Amino acid sequence: MLDCAIIGGGPAGLTAGLYTTRGGLGDVVMFEKGMPGGQITMSSEIENYPGVTGHNLSGMDLMIPWPEQCQRFGLKHEMSEVTRVSRNEDGTFVIHKSDGSTNTAKSVIVGTGSTPKRAGFIGEDKYFGRGVSTCATCDGFFYKGKEVAVIGGGDTALEEALYLAKICSKVYLIHRRDTFRSAPSTIERVKTTANIELVLNASPQEVVGDAMGVTGIRVALKDGSTRQIDVPGVFVFIGNNVNNQVLIQEDGSFLCDMNAAGEVIVDISMKTSVAGLYATGDMRIAAPKQVVSAAGDGAVAALQAIAYVDEISHH
Amino acid sequence: MLDCAIIGGGPAGLTAGLYTTRGGLGDVVMFEKGMPGGQITMSSEIENYPGVTGHNLSGMDLMIPWPEQCQRFGLKHEMSEVTRVSRNEDGTFVIHKSDGSTNTAKSVIVGTGSTPKRAGFIGEDKYFGRGVSTCATCDGFFYKGKEVAVIGGGDTALEEALYLAKICSKVYLIHRRDTFRSAPSTIERVKTTANIELVLNASPQEVVGDAMGVTGIRVALKDGSTRQIDVPGVFVFIGNNVNNQVLIQEDGSFLCDMNAAGEVIVDISMKTSVAGLYATGDMRIAAPKQVVSAAGDGAVAALQAIAYVDEISHH
Repeated sequence: MLDCAIIGGGPAGLTAGLYTTRGGLGDVVMFEKGMPGGQITMSSEIENYPGVTGHNLSGMDLMIPWPEQCQRFGLKHEMSEVTRVSRNEDGTFVIHKSDGSTNTAKSVIVGTGSTPKRAGFIGEDKYFGRGVSTCATCDGFFYKGKEVAVIGGGDTALEEALYLAKICSKVYLIHRRDTFRSAPSTIERVKTTANIELVLNASPQEVVGDAMGVTGIRVALKDGSTRQIDVPGVFVFIGNNVNNQVLIQEDGSFLCDMNAAGEVIVDISMKTSVAGLYATGDMRIAAPKQVVSAAGDGAVAALQAIAYVDEISHH
Repeated sequence: MLDCAIIGGGPAGLTAGLYTTRGGLGDVVMFEKGMPGGQITMSSEIENYPGVTGHNLSGMDLMIPWPEQCQRFGLKHEMSEVTRVSRNEDGTFVIHKSDGSTNTAKSVIVGTGSTPKRAGFIGEDKYFGRGVSTCATCDGFFYKGKEVAVIGGGDTALEEALYLAKICSKVYLIHRRDTFRSAPSTIERVKTTANIELVLNASPQEVVGDAMGVTGIRVALKDGSTRQIDVPGVFVFIGNNVNNQVLIQEDGSFLCDMNAAGEVIVDISMKTSVAGLYATGDMRIAAPKQVVSAAGDGAVAALQAIAYVDEISHH
């Protein structure tokens, strides 16, 4: 029986592994089918992880020392795909893996992240990380004083457009409808922000670029015409898939309480509605989706798991 | 009028400064009367800040690159002592300084930390950071397989003793009374943990050591005798002063809701009960008191402050 099973090997999972093992839990396994590091390893540049700097530091550069540091205290990494986490009647957990095998664990820390949806236009994948982004907080500053395009019409798209408008000289907000799905006050703020231009009833067709990255986006308008907007940055916010599959039970219900967006409901210490189960990083409610925040989540969840395992072992 | 005033220059305040300025807030000042870096700069070794490693990395070593990185985007550091933050009727804030001058700000992020109480025995200050510690999560691992002493009889002392008992070969729990101020279940766990020895009715007199650090602690017992306990590590948990002075108003009330321990009540995004005011790091409820968590707090508070300032500027 594992003291703690960690599902996911991004910044949250790695930090949880560091803190659980350094805090004395003896048998801790991090289940991550690929290389540890998480979504940030796809980023070409990161400059907002405090304490780590460097010229053109990439997400991969940032994460390179983490696995060794986090495994120094006994954390094991198992390259298995976890399909489901379930709970026994006695409160222990079962980790189901794609090869059919299982592990049992006294506590579980889940940090499987989320995956931004792709819009599906030509060039989107080719230029991802080289002008196409899904995170204004992460990448907005790289377009300081420049023009950018935002694609989407929901809450996140509008909020990210407002964020970008304070950094960039101009934001083209490209939306396929002429109405937005967001709070009226947010829509009003977008409409009254001088450097946001609404490009409505417009469908992105292709991102164009050169060897240096994106140079523009071509959109199809309702009247059949097309418009080319010359920008070095295109931000896509058309939704987010929360990677919560491992929490789905055989009857289709979730192992713990979730919100309508499929994010795990946690308290300020990353406790879920189920004792001994913690959720961290981009998959939890109100996640700022930053490496430093995910790592902070992993630390606090680990401290909670240590106390929980100690508590149940005295029963 | 500042867009954002940051009070305190530890990991939380520095990260808040990085994120607010990089996110486009134009006029942000971090008020820190001393050198930035925070309480961690007093630590002789840190090995649990993910992504930063090194042989015998000190807290000071860890924090050295932060100010330059966090000020790259326009954060200003003012070496003033803030005495009080108050709020105007229009919702803006006033930063009162010890020289009598003031600043006004649209939003405020407070991260002034907390200060562990000293027990007052001989050698406590001399050996602080060289065997005397106030943080089991931070320093417990450095005594893996060794014996340590814990001083205190409250919740924190007992929880930290349980934490240390999983790492260390033995924990001497030194308490001046024969009863504990903690939850019955916690007391029961302490009493049933085989490698915790209770040293009750005992008052610490002196920590002794040599050039390498602590070698033992001498305690006075109720019967007038003394006992010398040979340990390389002494953990003091006799209480914590939350540095919440800047939130105390002229009438003695607090600017925002606090708990009974004097910690600021925040939600998962570090919002306090007052719009535009955020609390971060060790001064907030349920703080794990780790550098990475404080930095995570600073990031999320900054993102909230950016959105708040944008919102009020459209009113």
